[in-house]
Amino acid sequence: MALNEPLNRKLRMALIGGGAGSFIGRVHSIAACLDNRAELVAGALSSNPERSKASAPDYGIDESRAYGSYEALLDGESKLPEDQRIDFVSIATPNHTHFEIARAAVEAGFNVMCDKPMTFDLGQAESLMETVENSDVVFAVTHNYTGYPLVRQAREMIASGELGEINAIRTQYIQGWLRTQLEAEDQKQAAWRTDPTKSGAAGAFGDIATHAYNLGRYMTSELPESVSCHLKTFVEGRKLDDYGTAVIRYQNGALGTVTASQISHGRENDLEIEIDGTKGSLRWRQENPNEMIYRQNGKAHQIYTRDPNAAYMNDSGANACRLPSGHPEAFFEAFSNVYASAFDAMAARSAGQKIDNSNTVYPNICDGVEGMYFIQQCVASSRADAAWLPLKHAVARC
Amino acid sequence: MALNEPLNRKLRMALIGGGAGSFIGRVHSIAACLDNRAELVAGALSSNPERSKASAPDYGIDESRAYGSYEALLDGESKLPEDQRIDFVSIATPNHTHFEIARAAVEAGFNVMCDKPMTFDLGQAESLMETVENSDVVFAVTHNYTGYPLVRQAREMIASGELGEINAIRTQYIQGWLRTQLEAEDQKQAAWRTDPTKSGAAGAFGDIATHAYNLGRYMTSELPESVSCHLKTFVEGRKLDDYGTAVIRYQNGALGTVTASQISHGRENDLEIEIDGTKGSLRWRQENPNEMIYRQNGKAHQIYTRDPNAAYMNDSGANACRLPSGHPEAFFEAFSNVYASAFDAMAARSAGQKIDNSNTVYPNICDGVEGMYFIQQCVASSRADAAWLPLKHAVARC
Amino acid sequence: MALNEPLNRKLRMALIGGGAGSFIGRVHSIAACLDNRAELVAGALSSNPERSKASAPDYGIDESRAYGSYEALLDGESKLPEDQRIDFVSIATPNHTHFEIARAAVEAGFNVMCDKPMTFDLGQAESLMETVENSDVVFAVTHNYTGYPLVRQAREMIASGELGEINAIRTQYIQGWLRTQLEAEDQKQAAWRTDPTKSGAAGAFGDIATHAYNLGRYMTSELPESVSCHLKTFVEGRKLDDYGTAVIRYQNGALGTVTASQISHGRENDLEIEIDGTKGSLRWRQENPNEMIYRQNGKAHQIYTRDPNAAYMNDSGANACRLPSGHPEAFFEAFSNVYASAFDAMAARSAGQKIDNSNTVYPNICDGVEGMYFIQQCVASSRADAAWLPLKHAVARC
Amino acid sequence: MALNEPLNRKLRMALIGGGAGSFIGRVHSIAACLDNRAELVAGALSSNPERSKASAPDYGIDESRAYGSYEALLDGESKLPEDQRIDFVSIATPNHTHFEIARAAVEAGFNVMCDKPMTFDLGQAESLMETVENSDVVFAVTHNYTGYPLVRQAREMIASGELGEINAIRTQYIQGWLRTQLEAEDQKQAAWRTDPTKSGAAGAFGDIATHAYNLGRYMTSELPESVSCHLKTFVEGRKLDDYGTAVIRYQNGALGTVTASQISHGRENDLEIEIDGTKGSLRWRQENPNEMIYRQNGKAHQIYTRDPNAAYMNDSGANACRLPSGHPEAFFEAFSNVYASAFDAMAARSAGQKIDNSNTVYPNICDGVEGMYFIQQCVASSRADAAWLPLKHAVARC
Repeated sequence: MALNEPLNRKLRMALIGGGAGSFIGRVHSIAACLDNRAELVAGALSSNPERSKASAPDYGIDESRAYGSYEALLDGESKLPEDQRIDFVSIATPNHTHFEIARAAVEAGFNVMCDKPMTFDLGQAESLMETVENSDVVFAVTHNYTGYPLVRQAREMIASGELGEINAIRTQYIQGWLRTQLEAEDQKQAAWRTDPTKSGAAGAFGDIATHAYNLGRYMTSELPESVSCHLKTFVEGRKLDDYGTAVIRYQNGALGTVTASQISHGRENDLEIEIDGTKGSLRWRQENPNEMIYRQNGKAHQIYTRDPNAAYMNDSGANACRLPSGHPEAFFEAFSNVYASAFDAMAARSAGQKIDNSNTVYPNICDGVEGMYFIQQCVASSRADAAWLPLKHAVARC
Repeated sequence: MALNEPLNRKLRMALIGGGAGSFIGRVHSIAACLDNRAELVAGALSSNPERSKASAPDYGIDESRAYGSYEALLDGESKLPEDQRIDFVSIATPNHTHFEIARAAVEAGFNVMCDKPMTFDLGQAESLMETVENSDVVFAVTHNYTGYPLVRQAREMIASGELGEINAIRTQYIQGWLRTQLEAEDQKQAAWRTDPTKSGAAGAFGDIATHAYNLGRYMTSELPESVSCHLKTFVEGRKLDDYGTAVIRYQNGALGTVTASQISHGRENDLEIEIDGTKGSLRWRQENPNEMIYRQNGKAHQIYTRDPNAAYMNDSGANACRLPSGHPEAFFEAFSNVYASAFDAMAARSAGQKIDNSNTVYPNICDGVEGMYFIQQCVASSRADAAWLPLKHAVARC
Repeated sequence: MALNEPLNRKLRMALIGGGAGSFIGRVHSIAACLDNRAELVAGALSSNPERSKASAPDYGIDESRAYGSYEALLDGESKLPEDQRIDFVSIATPNHTHFEIARAAVEAGFNVMCDKPMTFDLGQAESLMETVENSDVVFAVTHNYTGYPLVRQAREMIASGELGEINAIRTQYIQGWLRTQLEAEDQKQAAWRTDPTKSGAAGAFGDIATHAYNLGRYMTSELPESVSCHLKTFVEGRKLDDYGTAVIRYQNGALGTVTASQISHGRENDLEIEIDGTKGSLRWRQENPNEMIYRQNGKAHQIYTRDPNAAYMNDSGANACRLPSGHPEAFFEAFSNVYASAFDAMAARSAGQKIDNSNTVYPNICDGVEGMYFIQQCVASSRADAAWLPLKHAVARC
Repeated sequence: MALNEPLNRKLRMALIGGGAGSFIGRVHSIAACLDNRAELVAGALSSNPERSKASAPDYGIDESRAYGSYEALLDGESKLPEDQRIDFVSIATPNHTHFEIARAAVEAGFNVMCDKPMTFDLGQAESLMETVENSDVVFAVTHNYTGYPLVRQAREMIASGELGEINAIRTQYIQGWLRTQLEAEDQKQAAWRTDPTKSGAAGAFGDIATHAYNLGRYMTSELPESVSCHLKTFVEGRKLDDYGTAVIRYQNGALGTVTASQISHGRENDLEIEIDGTKGSLRWRQENPNEMIYRQNGKAHQIYTRDPNAAYMNDSGANACRLPSGHPEAFFEAFSNVYASAFDAMAARSAGQKIDNSNTVYPNICDGVEGMYFIQQCVASSRADAAWLPLKHAVARC
């Protein structure tokens, strides 16, 4: 198979954000290029033009395409001949800057891979959605956990009815790194995430509960009805929540729970999901992503390992594997799978196909909007003593 | 050390309930006798006098002390000379019968080991508490999970401040055996547990969420403030909840969650607790009870195995062990530890000591009342659309 | 069911050994009495008459039957009327004393539960076998790990051909408690186990490799052909091996390995077995005994939990369970299952049945002989630079 | 930091092997390019010129540099101007072809990344070593498991004395995929691996026991003394071993075991190592590579997660991490770490530094020779009834 058929060439990538000290910028560049389907050729790596240029050699970006700002990047690339110009931008900046960058990129006609949460607030998200819908670009939101092969396996199992009707969706995302007030020590990752002017209305719930919620939505496709949420800030002096629990009623009667913590000593990125259906139950954990437990009453507990050759694997699961079972795949490969699905769409777009944003393998603009709605409603519910608030957004996909 | 000092003899036990088909009756008899500190000498094993007598040989109970009813048992034993008469009764009957049996036993001056939930409703529990307080008997409620050595270890660690202030208490008790309407097939265990006239106001929440809640209370001693609960009945035709989630606010500001399920395919008795403190976090699971994970930021995750000789073990943990580490102990031994602590109190009572029911190692009458209050408030909250209701009962111990 | 049909009464037990400081004596007494099928009524708890009597109250043994020596015990009990006299003795003394006690007990007509290794050397074992064969007593050797429900489950699975032909049997028993020269500090458990005049020809290989070897033999019934063994003493000043590996050729062509260690830091009682058959493979670990992994190519890995009600459980497995799945059973219950199987035989003997020692559920005199042969040949092989020596003993059962 | 300082540019890679159906060729290309430090620009992807060219687009290799043979590749690249010419070749062909390709590449002055086992037999390996020593190229053998961060962490822990003196090294590599005679079904991966004319003298022992042995050598640096090995072929019709066990005596008195299986149902790539030192013990498994258990008597078991920021991590471990803890890294990242270490050496070579092949972070020509010696001696020992044969090769590094 040639690369990115029918394009038959690597896609050209620009990275926005990702300068020195960035974690997620490096992740985007590795994930995008892992399969050799894309090449990082341009960057606006920092909002400071000098730092941006200084970081370029780390990424092997040519000096001439190390831009001092995202505006300069979009402008400069637009002027390049089509056979050099970038195909997409990856946005790896703090939350509050996503909107204007993403909108400008879409308006310039570039495909966008946007980090999550997609925007600063729901208003921006809905506005961005309009912009995207008026364009023909591919727009993906990197809810990267959706790229794990066994997550996609679970999604297809549920879609095909293997678990029966879904009754319960329990998710947790437990971390411990913000147990102390790191932001007061100027730790870069902590500083913007706990600053409401940069991170948005929520802390832990914006940063990680959104992933947990998205994972449940992605796996089950059950539509939410309403939410009751309770946010806490346990670390003194912190401006945003660092712990919280949301209870979710789904339209089909299922009950969901989302718990997120940044203050649990020693916990790393313990994202876990348990799903109960009338015919079977599943459990998967991000920290041990190459196995999922599938249970049915009266039968032995079944460990589904990530095994592209196993009879139990469906196409969604098997196609997301790069290695035979027993050779573990992990975070980068999952992140890269989100890219790979978006690359398929970009290649299709280049051949004139229209992308249906409400039905893509990768998380899309609708999921981005829904994530922002989740944050907004959780914060509002928490402020109203955990009152039940609606959670179904018009664009939620099922 | 002689047995049950200063009594220096085995304690004499009567079992009420436990006839053919009973699970928990056999558990009580094994647990009580495991250390050779007690002997089962009498029984009213069934509410049917013939079945009661027929079951007696299974337990090695002499025909002469196989009574046809609990009333006959209390009466018969009271008339025996002191050196033959039973010391305590263990009540292993369905919930709705606990109250009258327990009250009669207390009034007859016998110590009581009562299964949980303690009574049918809160009114009975409070009434029974009064009866117990007007007596000098030892009264224990077999919240058996409190007997696991690592549970007691955790309790002392928290009491001594090792975890700092407690912020979060997450508990789950997940089962799958009631996924289908077993009660319609006349399965004995299912039938009474799902029958509101026998089980009380709650199903899963009465049967297992009470254990999970009690475990959090026992380990942390944090006092609850209020609860918001959401109960579900997923299996058609069932009369009581088989799934639910409660969110609990503690007085110190901590947030708790209790989730219970009887409808999760393939899940057995997956009782799990995670506790976050400002200085460390703990995780323990009943199905793998010989280890607990203790975590502190920046340090390796520590697996505390049940090791009576380890430097990290405190007295509460070490004293509850019978075996060196690596030779697993389990359910019976934990259940037996609850008995052992109550036996200490019974021996003390026999020497004229007064028992302080608000501060015992074993779960006591206060915990029994609190459990019934928990059930009542959860059911009420759920009926009121998960409204916040008070959860602190006057007798709650800290 | 009445107790010990057709006897219809508890069996009466005497404990030899088990005085203050003993670990295994207490284990025997708990295991024997767990199901209420036996009662501890007599003891020769120490080779020191005063200590023996002093320990009696700990066990609830009446002063009149607390004997000062095993000879006195056998003599005294023989003279008691039949309806008071003990039915069996449990021998929980250091290895070097087993032979004479066991022989005397058998000659006195008492059933025997003997700790392992059965004797001091092979000569004694073979001699004892003759004595047993000339009697009609029940003689069990407490290779207690054979009592775990999933071990028995595996045994029946293999016997019934579910795993196909057996190709490989890998066992390990890894401990760490003798990492330092504890025996130099007069630690009682360490002292006799590392003293060749008390423990016999081997250290780790006598104490724990025998268990591992026995487990492989018990599960598979494959007959051994020859052994090559390599023993090491890593702790300076120690007189016996504290580490070693044996390679075993089985008659059917299978290859086995037995590794034992007492010097692996932090390891507790990590007895593990992996079995490869042409149709499936198994893995079980003693420290997590309520699950076993069963694997077949192309299928999900199956976790068999100890579930008496599961379709995958066979009779051997299910009958060894006392609790439903998810309520863990452990060391005592397994030990007790060895007793329970021997009790069945004792009851049968009392009804005039003859015991076939080459085919019992519990480990018997043949297994005891074979264990001593294993120790002898391993030590000899190791001394001969790991030369291959025969391993099939005439009495080995299949 | 610029790329590959002082080169300050990406390294140019050629891939030999890796055409359609190849597993390991794709792995090499992803691993080499993961960090953007190298670019795949040329290939001789198949020994069939047409297939070679047909596969080029999959890798994004330009038609002009898709060569029909390795000779053409070396020739063609040598003639290119220095600023286009490749820097290194990666050899991902069946074992029997490694030698001639590697020798030619070295003689042409190109750095080499060679798959393992390095050659077809020891003679070739020693000959190749001479060639390499007469050159100044960087020569790495992709014993990829040495690239896992926690493997490097363990290596430095041991080198620094944290574990004390090493007593025991237990390794296993257990697979199940060759349980049936796949080679008879023309499965490509199975066909050459079980064909002695392509794979060499050993099957499982050449393919995977070498990894296990190398892992023990890499982690501990203990020098071997002698080996006793027992190989088995369990699948009928197979020409090479598919199971075996080797016992290894190390010069310092330590005892090692290496067990490899390709016939264990359902087992995937279960490479496991346990190391016992006088001060501590370690356990690590490839299938769950982000954690390692470190144990010391009397202390809690410590789980070292792959955490670049943890106090317990040493430089070797931390520097091999790309992600914070809790975001798992896996097979590709480990493989890539071997490349990264070799890239450091290639960059150093370009600046005129001489590489010391006996002391590199990546597995080098010496390790390649030692691996071939291990295979030869294991096969010879097995043929001689597991006789002890020497195992220390003159070039073994410590």
